[in-house]
Amino acid sequence: MKTVAIIGTGLIGASFGLALRKAGFDGSILGVSSSRAIAEAVAVGAIDRGAPLAEAAAQADLIFLSQTIGRILDTIRHLDALVKPGALVTDAGSTKSEIVDAAMQNLSRCQFLGGHPMAGKEKRGAGAASADLFQGQTWVLTPVEAGELDTPAAIDFRNWLKRIGARVVALDCDEHDRIVSLTSHLPQLASTALAATLAERLKESQTAVAGSGLMDMTRLALSSYDIWRDILTTNSEHIERALAGYIQELEHIRENLRTRQLQEEFARAARFAASLRR
Amino acid sequence: MKTVAIIGTGLIGASFGLALRKAGFDGSILGVSSSRAIAEAVAVGAIDRGAPLAEAAAQADLIFLSQTIGRILDTIRHLDALVKPGALVTDAGSTKSEIVDAAMQNLSRCQFLGGHPMAGKEKRGAGAASADLFQGQTWVLTPVEAGELDTPAAIDFRNWLKRIGARVVALDCDEHDRIVSLTSHLPQLASTALAATLAERLKESQTAVAGSGLMDMTRLALSSYDIWRDILTTNSEHIERALAGYIQELEHIRENLRTRQLQEEFARAARFAASLRR
Repeated sequence: MKTVAIIGTGLIGASFGLALRKAGFDGSILGVSSSRAIAEAVAVGAIDRGAPLAEAAAQADLIFLSQTIGRILDTIRHLDALVKPGALVTDAGSTKSEIVDAAMQNLSRCQFLGGHPMAGKEKRGAGAASADLFQGQTWVLTPVEAGELDTPAAIDFRNWLKRIGARVVALDCDEHDRIVSLTSHLPQLASTALAATLAERLKESQTAVAGSGLMDMTRLALSSYDIWRDILTTNSEHIERALAGYIQELEHIRENLRTRQLQEEFARAARFAASLRR
Repeated sequence: MKTVAIIGTGLIGASFGLALRKAGFDGSILGVSSSRAIAEAVAVGAIDRGAPLAEAAAQADLIFLSQTIGRILDTIRHLDALVKPGALVTDAGSTKSEIVDAAMQNLSRCQFLGGHPMAGKEKRGAGAASADLFQGQTWVLTPVEAGELDTPAAIDFRNWLKRIGARVVALDCDEHDRIVSLTSHLPQLASTALAATLAERLKESQTAVAGSGLMDMTRLALSSYDIWRDILTTNSEHIERALAGYIQELEHIRENLRTRQLQEEFARAARFAASLRR
């Protein structure tokens, strides 16, 4: 690939540009974003310059959609007429089924390959971007058919992902959405629900008694709804099932507070938590 | 006070001994524990020597019960005949109502004042003890009547708590148990339930997708049931209510995944989480 268009030059998009440069990419990197985001991305060296979507799409061999899920869906609906034939379009949306569906319905002049880099930071924007953000992190790709990973454009893209240090994992998009509903979306809602439950029942002076466990358990609750709205609406079926399973487990614990049954739950939970840390 | 008896020379008991020494206490510190725990506590300088309960209790002006809740209850049932009249008995149990009840029923020759130092570590035993463990941390005292804080023995004890850096807070024992059911016991069960829910639904290879949020949310799940059994059985009413409130909040979120209602929950949760960090 010679020209890359990054649509949405926030934390992920700008980090992708910086990572490509650090890995030796010497082609052109165009950014499509608000004028403020473009200025920030140019300033940190993540892109060469800003361009309108039509101009960037017409030149790019790789189009990287690193916007919010809602905007990725919107861009996909307008992109087909603008692309260079044979270009590869990929994305960084944190749910995949709706995006892949939209791409199958709307893109025919180019290849689409869904993606989800499992990397992030608490800070947003190109100012927080880092060339090493994807180093050692999982980057999920969600081909509809396995052959999609082996087109020349996809091989080229995967090679660049390796060069920036990402560990590429191929997953079915529905299976991806099920897994992240458990590993990411459920923990977020468990934290938000915990903080909301406590907010109703404690005066501020009573939280002086808070230990480090409560701090761990409420860190995700600091997240803003703006980031989560699209995730919750585009993955609601899997999230509903995950929540139902969690509620069932909590009911089981509640009914067995005084019994030895809980020993088993604690042991199972501790084994799982330990396995995450290996 | 001239002689202190520490009953249970694990992390908390040994840290109390070390903290007293660092703060300038030059009386005698006796330990009552298993011979292995005594050897460890002597080795780190937390106690002068081990002694049988009867011998230690007969000499001590302050008896500090830093065992598990079950053993504290057991010690309280046997202590009255052994104490030096007028001694102060206090404890470090993390639930208070059952302990205070047992003390009121069983101790008449000495004063009892319930306590809960809000400090801890992941490691257990005197080997992990630190003279600074209570520095800047809340130490709850649960007098049944306010006057109990102002007896000569209690004033002396409170002065030593100040010298070791603890921030003393007086609370009614039932109110203490309600607060910790929310700030400590519910977060533990929320973490255990989350890890148990995921353990059932994910293969180990699928947890490569785990981010830092999941690590935060499963850290408490590493805890062993041994530590929690007594807490859960001695505070089950408050914990049941806390779990019921949490489950209700999760149901509310589950029913509103696609609605704007969640914006309010996220905002309330984020405000609470931020207030913990001020």
